[in-house]
Amino acid sequence: MPEMNGAESLMRTLVACGVDTCFTNPGTSEIHLVAALDRIPQVRCVLGLFEGVVTGAADGYARMLERPACTLLHLGPGFGNGLANLHNASRAQVPMLNLIGQHATYHLRLDTPLQSDIEAIARPYSRWLRTATASSELGHDAAAAVAAARTAPGRIATLIVAADVAWSEGGVVAAPPALSAPSAPDNSNIEHASAMLRSGLPTAILMTGNALYGKGLAVAGRIAAATGAKLLAPYPVARLERGAGLPAVERVAYVLEQAVEQMKEFRQLILVGANAPVAYFAQPGKDSAFTSPECEIHTLASAGEDYVAALEATESALSLPHTEPVAEKAARPAMPDGAITLPGLAMVVGALLPQNAMVVDELMTSGRGMMAATRGAPPHDWLGNTGGSIGIAMPLAVGAAVACPDRRVLCLSADGSGMYTLQALWTMARERLRVTTVIFANRDYAVLKREFSYLGVGEPGGRALAMFEIGRPDLDWVHLAQGMGVPAVRATSLAEFARALRNGLESDGPTLIEVPL
Amino acid sequence: MPEMNGAESLMRTLVACGVDTCFTNPGTSEIHLVAALDRIPQVRCVLGLFEGVVTGAADGYARMLERPACTLLHLGPGFGNGLANLHNASRAQVPMLNLIGQHATYHLRLDTPLQSDIEAIARPYSRWLRTATASSELGHDAAAAVAAARTAPGRIATLIVAADVAWSEGGVVAAPPALSAPSAPDNSNIEHASAMLRSGLPTAILMTGNALYGKGLAVAGRIAAATGAKLLAPYPVARLERGAGLPAVERVAYVLEQAVEQMKEFRQLILVGANAPVAYFAQPGKDSAFTSPECEIHTLASAGEDYVAALEATESALSLPHTEPVAEKAARPAMPDGAITLPGLAMVVGALLPQNAMVVDELMTSGRGMMAATRGAPPHDWLGNTGGSIGIAMPLAVGAAVACPDRRVLCLSADGSGMYTLQALWTMARERLRVTTVIFANRDYAVLKREFSYLGVGEPGGRALAMFEIGRPDLDWVHLAQGMGVPAVRATSLAEFARALRNGLESDGPTLIEVPL
Repeated sequence: MPEMNGAESLMRTLVACGVDTCFTNPGTSEIHLVAALDRIPQVRCVLGLFEGVVTGAADGYARMLERPACTLLHLGPGFGNGLANLHNASRAQVPMLNLIGQHATYHLRLDTPLQSDIEAIARPYSRWLRTATASSELGHDAAAAVAAARTAPGRIATLIVAADVAWSEGGVVAAPPALSAPSAPDNSNIEHASAMLRSGLPTAILMTGNALYGKGLAVAGRIAAATGAKLLAPYPVARLERGAGLPAVERVAYVLEQAVEQMKEFRQLILVGANAPVAYFAQPGKDSAFTSPECEIHTLASAGEDYVAALEATESALSLPHTEPVAEKAARPAMPDGAITLPGLAMVVGALLPQNAMVVDELMTSGRGMMAATRGAPPHDWLGNTGGSIGIAMPLAVGAAVACPDRRVLCLSADGSGMYTLQALWTMARERLRVTTVIFANRDYAVLKREFSYLGVGEPGGRALAMFEIGRPDLDWVHLAQGMGVPAVRATSLAEFARALRNGLESDGPTLIEVPL
Repeated sequence: MPEMNGAESLMRTLVACGVDTCFTNPGTSEIHLVAALDRIPQVRCVLGLFEGVVTGAADGYARMLERPACTLLHLGPGFGNGLANLHNASRAQVPMLNLIGQHATYHLRLDTPLQSDIEAIARPYSRWLRTATASSELGHDAAAAVAAARTAPGRIATLIVAADVAWSEGGVVAAPPALSAPSAPDNSNIEHASAMLRSGLPTAILMTGNALYGKGLAVAGRIAAATGAKLLAPYPVARLERGAGLPAVERVAYVLEQAVEQMKEFRQLILVGANAPVAYFAQPGKDSAFTSPECEIHTLASAGEDYVAALEATESALSLPHTEPVAEKAARPAMPDGAITLPGLAMVVGALLPQNAMVVDELMTSGRGMMAATRGAPPHDWLGNTGGSIGIAMPLAVGAAVACPDRRVLCLSADGSGMYTLQALWTMARERLRVTTVIFANRDYAVLKREFSYLGVGEPGGRALAMFEIGRPDLDWVHLAQGMGVPAVRATSLAEFARALRNGLESDGPTLIEVPL
């Protein structure tokens, strides 16, 4: 075997472990890792012009493929730029592998300008964290990182690689690690869940992760059909498969009062990977729980356990008669016309959403009717913001499009959210990703205006409004998109929106539609 | 005294401590702090659409005024988005006070989507860090944070404020804290520095902080004139006052070989607040030190000591005859014409730079001739990237313009750097800041291409180049700026650049000039 440096052994180990996509924004300390990638065509490298794009894309990729991409980021500050979307990824419980360059080990004593405590910066969002210390071990480190990332349901693993560890010879490609299977579900939990489902009391099953698509969803659908239980997804949903012919899953509402109303019928709630549903934020004098005090909450499976197996075991324990799952009926809204309204926009989306689309949804206040209008559309996946840190939509869309090049992405973003990571548009253009981004331009952090009144602080005055209103000047998303090479139009009527959306969904690359509200 | 809540006592304490500017991107958990600001017109609130803009602006503000602005940021992920420019601010050694909202204390047990370990995220860049626990103490916490931020030469202080601590009554405005003066310089260090300066050996004085402007620079200029010592500033310079009539200070070069050439004449190097000059990055088989092994390096004053007093004491110890400082002569380059070249662009800037300008410089590979062409321009300040994390220029420009509304900002940015925090343009437009931004569009991370060859990895191949070249598609900065409300033009000749620059420097608000290279 020819001599190779640490960097090359790391990258070749990743290839051996099935990691074939690298989202990156590299710097000088990562040059040898870039040079290794230069020689390894098996890895697709996708450049982002800002690290929040990189980490958000790796999240979207993992949500669709259930395996990790790697990121390649520059030192502590570069990793720091990716932190907010790592927060979201940690809440999505996806597998992800971050590679962070570090100064050469002997350079650290000099306290140079870019020096930082990378481990300290990386620790809060890395379930597995290691600083590589030897070129000969770098392959093993990479394999261990992949194993950590693929620990169910999915973890963020971070490997810090000093420049001299990367550039020194002596690298050894490691064999792919044995992956640990998710834990078997607990029998007593299964028995209790089946007893609940047999009780006849109004029951909901709140699920996350792979219970919300594929086999997991199918089993859940059969249980729901046979027992009358309702299937729920959390508001912060990572991925939900839905549409005509699939079991109906309702998403829990964001707004406390709406969610309380939604949950009040249930006397029993079974959790599969999910937390009990509560408000994102506390409000003075109000309870944060969505469920009524009489509702019994039971955890059937928690993170790290096998959600699908738990559902299957519950189905077996129930000895269900064969029941056809209650599937959503194929139905699209009539194509609306006239002035822009939120219900009208949702109807257009429902009328046009193509089969197998991946819908990325970070609409906040503007998008509440979107899911109802698309429930009978052809089957598709729905990807939400899982951690509440805004600025994930366009990066997620990049990652989903890279993961599934044959499927189209409809990316629905509020303008305020979109501004955090608008650099993603450039990556869409460079990679010719089939993403249609719709910017709902209300020119507000509208959710904050609402919360202001909501928290009992009265009506915001002029100075507070100035911190919530993002007009003055209005953002012009047509210009912003064109500035990054994405063709864009502004839609000022539902007919214009429908035309633009149809064009976008048929386009061979990215497009953007700004919809002033 | 009327009852007030914690939030109001915090903000009123900041006002009492002279903190009158808040750069912010708030969220729901900061609503009560926003509501307090709504009632306190003494604080100017400046909204950024991304947190890296906010922290970079607070850095620029502090560099010019030598006192802290506060930032107001949303939970751990919002603070995380500001991390890279906090890295730069920590290297600039500026005072800064971060306020971070936190969930209500009793809400934390619920592990809601936005929950994070804020202290862990904030710790790496916070020299002072506290989570407030009682409304009645919030005023004191704020005063303590200001005292920490104003500890010489300047520190980042971070105060985490839970929503219920902010909204509960019982707030008490605290008195401004006693500020600790910088430590007196050490006598033996002063005596040794004077002996070095008397020795006749070729000597340089490498300075940072307030030694590079105002009184400090004047004293250093007299010492240099009388002893023949050369004055140097580090490449990562926070603020350097320069121009016609001021002592000449040379900036240490970025590139190892150039810096070694620049430093080789010196047998003695006196450090005032600065580290010994070394390469940012290690290169295999090369020494990182810029100074020759024979050069004696002596620290006259280090961080926390009084740089100006150290220079004054050294001047006294030298018993210098009265010498006129050697001042830069007033001289501007002739206005060039013809095609765009880097020297030509520098000449135009040198010909047009107005008195009292604040030049923000993040040009990386394109700007090496800019300082020579402006050395005889009317007096101005030069603000660089101190921590090497790119994406500081436009945020710094925002902060400097807010700090000194009567002065003009010339913001020189590379295209790659600019993309990290381009949202700053929107804040410039909203606040009508007199910032002229020039984007040097080489459509490359050119420094990485150079480093690739430099590190002995050979020439980058197609896959590596794809990670260094940010064309395909080219960014269109005219569109990007217009998208955020900033008038913009593209200059394709030196005459066009001169016309655009003159217009920009006379404009009553922000403008942007894209210069394709």
